Amino acid sequence: MAKEGKNYFEISLRLHRFYRGKIEIVPRVPVTQMEHFSVWYTPGVAEPSRVVSRDANLSFELTNRWNTIAVVSDGTRVLGLGSIGPEAALPVMEGKALLFKYLGGVDAVPLVTRTRDPDALVEFVKAVEPSFGGINLEDIESPKCFYVLERLQKELNIPVWHDDQQGTALVTLAGLINALKIVGKKLSQVRIAVIGAGAAGIAIMKYLMVAGADPGKIIAVDSKGILHPDRPDLKSGDPWLRWKREIAEKTNAERMTGGIPEAMRGADVVIAASRPGPGVIKKEWVRAMADDPIVFAEANPVPEIWPWEAKEAGARVVATGRSDFPNQINNSLGFPAVFRGALTVMSRKITDGMCIAAAEALARYAEEKGLSEDYIIPTMEETEAYVREAIAVALKAIEEGVARRKPSRSELESEIRELIERPRKYMDLALGRGLIKKEPEW
Amino acid sequence: MAKEGKNYFEISLRLHRFYRGKIEIVPRVPVTQMEHFSVWYTPGVAEPSRVVSRDANLSFELTNRWNTIAVVSDGTRVLGLGSIGPEAALPVMEGKALLFKYLGGVDAVPLVTRTRDPDALVEFVKAVEPSFGGINLEDIESPKCFYVLERLQKELNIPVWHDDQQGTALVTLAGLINALKIVGKKLSQVRIAVIGAGAAGIAIMKYLMVAGADPGKIIAVDSKGILHPDRPDLKSGDPWLRWKREIAEKTNAERMTGGIPEAMRGADVVIAASRPGPGVIKKEWVRAMADDPIVFAEANPVPEIWPWEAKEAGARVVATGRSDFPNQINNSLGFPAVFRGALTVMSRKITDGMCIAAAEALARYAEEKGLSEDYIIPTMEETEAYVREAIAVALKAIEEGVARRKPSRSELESEIRELIERPRKYMDLALGRGLIKKEPEW
Repeated sequence: MAKEGKNYFEISLRLHRFYRGKIEIVPRVPVTQMEHFSVWYTPGVAEPSRVVSRDANLSFELTNRWNTIAVVSDGTRVLGLGSIGPEAALPVMEGKALLFKYLGGVDAVPLVTRTRDPDALVEFVKAVEPSFGGINLEDIESPKCFYVLERLQKELNIPVWHDDQQGTALVTLAGLINALKIVGKKLSQVRIAVIGAGAAGIAIMKYLMVAGADPGKIIAVDSKGILHPDRPDLKSGDPWLRWKREIAEKTNAERMTGGIPEAMRGADVVIAASRPGPGVIKKEWVRAMADDPIVFAEANPVPEIWPWEAKEAGARVVATGRSDFPNQINNSLGFPAVFRGALTVMSRKITDGMCIAAAEALARYAEEKGLSEDYIIPTMEETEAYVREAIAVALKAIEEGVARRKPSRSELESEIRELIERPRKYMDLALGRGLIKKEPEW
Repeated sequence: MAKEGKNYFEISLRLHRFYRGKIEIVPRVPVTQMEHFSVWYTPGVAEPSRVVSRDANLSFELTNRWNTIAVVSDGTRVLGLGSIGPEAALPVMEGKALLFKYLGGVDAVPLVTRTRDPDALVEFVKAVEPSFGGINLEDIESPKCFYVLERLQKELNIPVWHDDQQGTALVTLAGLINALKIVGKKLSQVRIAVIGAGAAGIAIMKYLMVAGADPGKIIAVDSKGILHPDRPDLKSGDPWLRWKREIAEKTNAERMTGGIPEAMRGADVVIAASRPGPGVIKKEWVRAMADDPIVFAEANPVPEIWPWEAKEAGARVVATGRSDFPNQINNSLGFPAVFRGALTVMSRKITDGMCIAAAEALARYAEEKGLSEDYIIPTMEETEAYVREAIAVALKAIEEGVARRKPSRSELESEIRELIERPRKYMDLALGRGLIKKEPEW
């Protein structure tokens, strides 16, 4: 496994050198004679500008703003590499933009910034708001990411999303909904141990509660042990621990103390988004869980416990972050469709309701295809799942009153399907006609 | 003419509604199976990121940064529409991005911002520097634009350009070089009246001087009359008048006073970049110029004097900003090739020398094709002129030591030619295969 990882690294570096960039910008409009620029640029363009100057919302109808988002990172927590800076974050953000287009038909602009101060980062994003129909925050360190997301969600009139929080939570929830069906348990009744209280862990707990989990039966663990309100660090009043403190106050009704083994003992579900394993979760701890335990071990590149170890210890359903095992909890199942849905209705927000609707649509899609212990969630290959998820998000935005436009379900479906299928058509054409070169030794 | 302008407005609004955006983002790399994302995104992408974290300059080799610029505007001086705000500026910036790609093969991202304070605008651009290989400032009010450009040129390590200053100056200079050949006069000897001392006028004078004009023989006029150091407003010490004051101190050796007629009397050349005419320049003022007068009337949509009026009054060579008259002083002849050249060698700057080299290359191209009073500068149709201009810019960057890479002339030529021709290939394909729809009633 380590070896395979190394291969991806070598191939990736070589191919990044060869292609020098993973996205590019092309015209969306015909230009077959220079006179056309009198329409797309001066003098003609003055008219659309004049119209927008009277109603700024029309920028969504007269420019590509309706389909364009920024992928914003300050490079302070890039993959497992830590704070490596904005330039080094750029290859990742370009990759994210590629995923946004290929899977969701969304035009995403990588925007890495030197702005590290939390308030300055908020001001930076507020400043560029008029350029974009949405903002995807990425690889920003915790707890800054909580503060930045909260403020931007409140202060902007376009959807703001932090994928390391909401994206992971959405896909985790989708997987959990179906895992619980397999073991015949209810979300409102199960005990859930959540290992890791960073961006992902905190968001997972938040959405578990929104989706109907019993807060008192959630036990959170971070590197200092189980969260409870009397823990000295959480009592300190440090404003940057506010998010952890809120979790500590809402969860763990029994005021349990201890570490991971205590949190897992008797739990129906363990969800780990902590640090690379193996060995972060031990087999004997899985053995001490309730009957039919569900184990989500989401650390990359190596899960907190190897899936086969979890199975040997009695886990009934196991999910990881990896594509080479069944049940991949893969953010790419979330963000492209969520933004596709939100942008298609020109939504002002991405609400918790839209996020839950996305998770439920993903879960429902897998259920219709037929659940098993090795299939609780769709894979990236299942394009139709994206279409269904995006429609669910758009309909929820309309229902909750945050959509700027309200197409019918069938209009939504045809618009969304066309936008999701378009990049694949482009890829066929570009490869066939040599617009994209084939690297000889892929 | 007014009627024709109105038509462009109507067509433009209708087509902007139909296409909803003039650019989009597409993949530059093959994706034919989902596993490829393990190379373009996690886990593989960690390796290019790690490599860039050790040397930030490698972001130019491992991402599309080498070919990507931002088109930045705060919407404070959009076309002739004034301060209409960032959203209303977006249609124009998208049009600019379309021109950048179609004419120069440059990937340009429209970035309109709410940041209006000059220092905050500087900080904003500094913050996004790591995302881009260059910055094109656009439609920013004067004198703020002088301050912002100066600071960014000093403080950034990528080329910064304000098209309303340098772009206009470059193309004006190219036209003037050839106009002077037609009348058999030398730049170092002619008297030049410059009408308008905004972004364009100030930059035109600066580059005239850099290119060899005699500063003392330049007479500048703004709305308050001829510039000279004793003019009360210029003596006031207002720091925001610094740029005008510098012009007043360097030019007008005779300490002439008065207005446009006084400035033009006996002048060999008049260059106006002031306000829409007709009637800003009067026929009798042209009659009072020296023999074989050269008249550049660059205001849009209506030049300061109609070309036929200028001709009737004895002008030998007339240029305007319009495509429906001969000798169009068109910024689109400048910025795409300047950035193409600068980006191709990963230049750290766009120097005055590179700008003059671009003007000379443009002038030389037209001269080789055969100058006449109605052909002093290439048109947008002449693709080869862009190639030649970009090569000249790249070579000058290498010569001046601001280039990060130093390809040979023939490597430069083939790289530049391929990048300039690529968007036309894309257009053919996209129109032929329905990726870009044809609007029925164009």
